[in-house]
Amino acid sequence: MIQPLIYDEERNVLRILDQRRLPFEEVYVEAHDGFQVADAIRDMVLRGAPLIAVAGAYAILMEVRKGADRERLQEVFSALRRSRPTAVNLFNILEVLENVLHETADVKRAIEERVLQFVEMEKRLYDRIGEYGSQIIPDDATVMTYCNTGFLATIGIGTAIGVIYKAFQKGKVREVIVPETRPYLQGARLTVYEMRKLGIPHRLITDNTAPFLMELGKVDAVVVGADRVVLNGDVANKIGTLSLALAAREFGIPFYVALPTSTIDPHSETFDGIRIEERGSEEVIFVRGNPITYPDTPTYHYAFDITPAKLVSGYITEKGVFRDIRRALEE
Amino acid sequence: MIQPLIYDEERNVLRILDQRRLPFEEVYVEAHDGFQVADAIRDMVLRGAPLIAVAGAYAILMEVRKGADRERLQEVFSALRRSRPTAVNLFNILEVLENVLHETADVKRAIEERVLQFVEMEKRLYDRIGEYGSQIIPDDATVMTYCNTGFLATIGIGTAIGVIYKAFQKGKVREVIVPETRPYLQGARLTVYEMRKLGIPHRLITDNTAPFLMELGKVDAVVVGADRVVLNGDVANKIGTLSLALAAREFGIPFYVALPTSTIDPHSETFDGIRIEERGSEEVIFVRGNPITYPDTPTYHYAFDITPAKLVSGYITEKGVFRDIRRALEE
Repeated sequence: MIQPLIYDEERNVLRILDQRRLPFEEVYVEAHDGFQVADAIRDMVLRGAPLIAVAGAYAILMEVRKGADRERLQEVFSALRRSRPTAVNLFNILEVLENVLHETADVKRAIEERVLQFVEMEKRLYDRIGEYGSQIIPDDATVMTYCNTGFLATIGIGTAIGVIYKAFQKGKVREVIVPETRPYLQGARLTVYEMRKLGIPHRLITDNTAPFLMELGKVDAVVVGADRVVLNGDVANKIGTLSLALAAREFGIPFYVALPTSTIDPHSETFDGIRIEERGSEEVIFVRGNPITYPDTPTYHYAFDITPAKLVSGYITEKGVFRDIRRALEE
Repeated sequence: MIQPLIYDEERNVLRILDQRRLPFEEVYVEAHDGFQVADAIRDMVLRGAPLIAVAGAYAILMEVRKGADRERLQEVFSALRRSRPTAVNLFNILEVLENVLHETADVKRAIEERVLQFVEMEKRLYDRIGEYGSQIIPDDATVMTYCNTGFLATIGIGTAIGVIYKAFQKGKVREVIVPETRPYLQGARLTVYEMRKLGIPHRLITDNTAPFLMELGKVDAVVVGADRVVLNGDVANKIGTLSLALAAREFGIPFYVALPTSTIDPHSETFDGIRIEERGSEEVIFVRGNPITYPDTPTYHYAFDITPAKLVSGYITEKGVFRDIRRALEE
């Protein structure tokens, strides 16, 4: 399967699959330092909360291997933290690496060890999430997902798509419903691409079709990923997730959130005071370069929304499936 | 204001504004007979349940003025009924005109009278809907609407947009939130166009942003149109309406449906057995001519969804505002 990130150790360069050009072109761009990684994250060359965290870890690794001093490293940390403010996985790994910096004399070796350990752990994580999640997918299920959470969003089989893939391997998945995920069309472009590569039957829908399919009884389970889960269980995920959660509850369909525990924000009880990223109008108005209305039309463009914990049937993590997200931290 | 339909009496031709090309071009096409009108409706040159009904009435008028015999008229009635199966206004006026045919010897004169009477009534209807509706819009309101329901969708000020326009004239509307309305983008293309022409402040959003804006407390009322309302109060309207209704209830925001009583289906208690139009995949996959994913991706493409009556705060009609739609028929 195609890799969304390839770290070239010899050249100390991060090769990043340009996800903006999928599914029509498979093109890599190169980041040569930490700031270029931050730019790539901000510009959505790559996306997906777990993948962004891996890219951020490599950014710091590249810098220490270049011999960056502490001042420059601080600037790279800041640039990475500004790149996408809502997804928490990146913040969590940056916090770990910053602590390593402060605690160690041999920074280069300590960071190298910690980053490579993180990458190795990440690679194995998603199989466990997938395995736990696949057990709760009903037989012969039509499963709705959202945005993209597979091998393009992680360095493994993915979160929600990892669950679906494992369930598919067990013969439990009849079809996957893929909402297009406006404005950036991660569903139409990336999840459809992944479903093809994985050989999983699927149908694309406009996002606004999701509640009606549930009303018609055509959906057996909804599984989505997350960009940040706070301790009360509320979930920030791609804008539009809330609509699926509300409809799932109304029509009695289980709604699961699949995430590594690194997506939990251990410092926040609620989303009060956490910035929900707003992006420019041009991503709403231009679809693959073509305007859908007057280019100067004002918009609201939130990248994420917040799904209240009460709408979540369960959190699927590498430690098991929980109804209370705090339990995942205690295990 | 631009007219979406212009009947040229002298040439017996219906000039139809090609709404597929808005907002970038204002171009009329001509329909010279009833079949061409049916084709234009099917191909969405024009749309909007009330406007389709007017076009259908003109189609019959054109045919009787051409001297069509009863056999040909039956074929035109059938073609019109096949053009868009869900919106009921067209079916209602066709039923009236078919009865005129069966009851009268002087068909031409009777049809002419009935069609012109219908058109005159339609022109006045929307001011009344707008006036009643404007009274229940709160002061300084941010109002969310959906799809397009204004002067492009009717031969008056519109249904939901008529309500908003009247409320705006009274100084009650701060801003209108316009969901883009995938796949056909009637919100982005047509409602944004109307808001500009009417001078009403507005913001465009992706459809999937609507629930989050409500969660954030940024919406004071939702007003939508309808394509068919059955006697139990359930509402068929543009796909995506259900999502707005579910979110509005969750976050305590009033959700109104504005409609002429000709949008009520007097023959149906529920939507059981009523066909919800499904359209081709290409409208989902191609956005203004450009593919968003592999062109052979399977889809579900329902043109409408069904909002249960329990989610509707009130029905705004030309006879007043009702909580029970049956009352609108009794008045």
